[in-house]
Amino acid sequence: MDASGPFSDEERAAVYRCIYSRRDVRGEFLPDAVPEDVLQRILRAAHHAPSVGFMQPWDFIIVQSRATKARLHEAFRVANDEAAAQFEPDRAAAYRRLKLEGIRDAPVGVCVTCDRNRAGAVVLGRTHQPDMDIYSTVCAVQNLWLAARAEGVGVGWVSIIRPEDLRDVLGIPREIVPIAYLCLGYASAFHEKPELEKRGWATRADLDQRLAWERWGGARTGPDHDV
Amino acid sequence: MDASGPFSDEERAAVYRCIYSRRDVRGEFLPDAVPEDVLQRILRAAHHAPSVGFMQPWDFIIVQSRATKARLHEAFRVANDEAAAQFEPDRAAAYRRLKLEGIRDAPVGVCVTCDRNRAGAVVLGRTHQPDMDIYSTVCAVQNLWLAARAEGVGVGWVSIIRPEDLRDVLGIPREIVPIAYLCLGYASAFHEKPELEKRGWATRADLDQRLAWERWGGARTGPDHDV
Repeated sequence: MDASGPFSDEERAAVYRCIYSRRDVRGEFLPDAVPEDVLQRILRAAHHAPSVGFMQPWDFIIVQSRATKARLHEAFRVANDEAAAQFEPDRAAAYRRLKLEGIRDAPVGVCVTCDRNRAGAVVLGRTHQPDMDIYSTVCAVQNLWLAARAEGVGVGWVSIIRPEDLRDVLGIPREIVPIAYLCLGYASAFHEKPELEKRGWATRADLDQRLAWERWGGARTGPDHDV
Repeated sequence: MDASGPFSDEERAAVYRCIYSRRDVRGEFLPDAVPEDVLQRILRAAHHAPSVGFMQPWDFIIVQSRATKARLHEAFRVANDEAAAQFEPDRAAAYRRLKLEGIRDAPVGVCVTCDRNRAGAVVLGRTHQPDMDIYSTVCAVQNLWLAARAEGVGVGWVSIIRPEDLRDVLGIPREIVPIAYLCLGYASAFHEKPELEKRGWATRADLDQRLAWERWGGARTGPDHDV
């Protein structure tokens, strides 16, 4: 098969199914080990993300030890208490009822980092948008997330943690930027809808309200407008 | 079919094929219009990206007019001249031989932006990592890119352009952050490898060199390490 050719209807449907059924998993991690070959496939998908100037600025720290997870969970707990205190009382109560991480439940943690100096001072495509290396690293996270979904492996992104604590616990040097701490493990279920939608925290926006034509706020034009 | 269940081997293979055959397209755009329903499917995939606190901070400006594309191309040209001047002479010559954008060739442009205030001052999951809204928007870009690949539509991310010029041309308000300007169109071909790799600009890193265990630089542990 020529990988560079068109996709069949079935292949296209599989890609959309993956995109639509991917979830942020926090409460459904099974204790089953993720086999080495499965984890490698998921990381390889991340490694094949687009990157500015092909700089591939990412690294992956794989966390499996209970002791490391316990330290990360404690850092989450401190941050989460601070976070809850920032909401109005009703919202804070709802916040505290949500399960927002699976650090200790998930068999594997993956910290994705960005080495901003990897390709030297001048990077093709980054001269006018210096954060393109960070964006490339986030593209790697999304590839990882989708590949994991296709493997039946759930992923939860833990952002309620101070980056300094991630650095401390994982020994990340000052010049490296931690982008994401991800919890990975086989999931007993993938929710039909995002949990924050299901639990009434927020609602899905109408896509039409997010579209504009030709300029910010511009009204819809036809598909062949001025082409 | 229950979308939340496991993927078949064929479905999983389709997802990996999409991830591995996605390319940054600059020189292979066909003039054929991208039908409205195809563009909608691609944008809907972007809209179903993960977002911090389910804030869905993105908006999409769809560009079809030749006049708008011409202005954006001029902004690219100015930035690209400045960029070329930053490289050492040999590298600069190689840089100038690369085709780095398809702004006028691609029938559709999509500018993806981030509204940092969309969900108010306190956002679940963003209290300790304020850039999570930007990262969410980049996840939407990657979803868009993969969905487009499955549709046979090429995407090129134009980052050699000043964000202020994107704002000017597209009327983007000061409080909104332009994240990506993407060129979209059916592609005559998807290169087997990234163009920058094919043309010798940079090489693919060895994934093994990007992995560490338990901490930055940590040596490999077994799959059941301390679990």
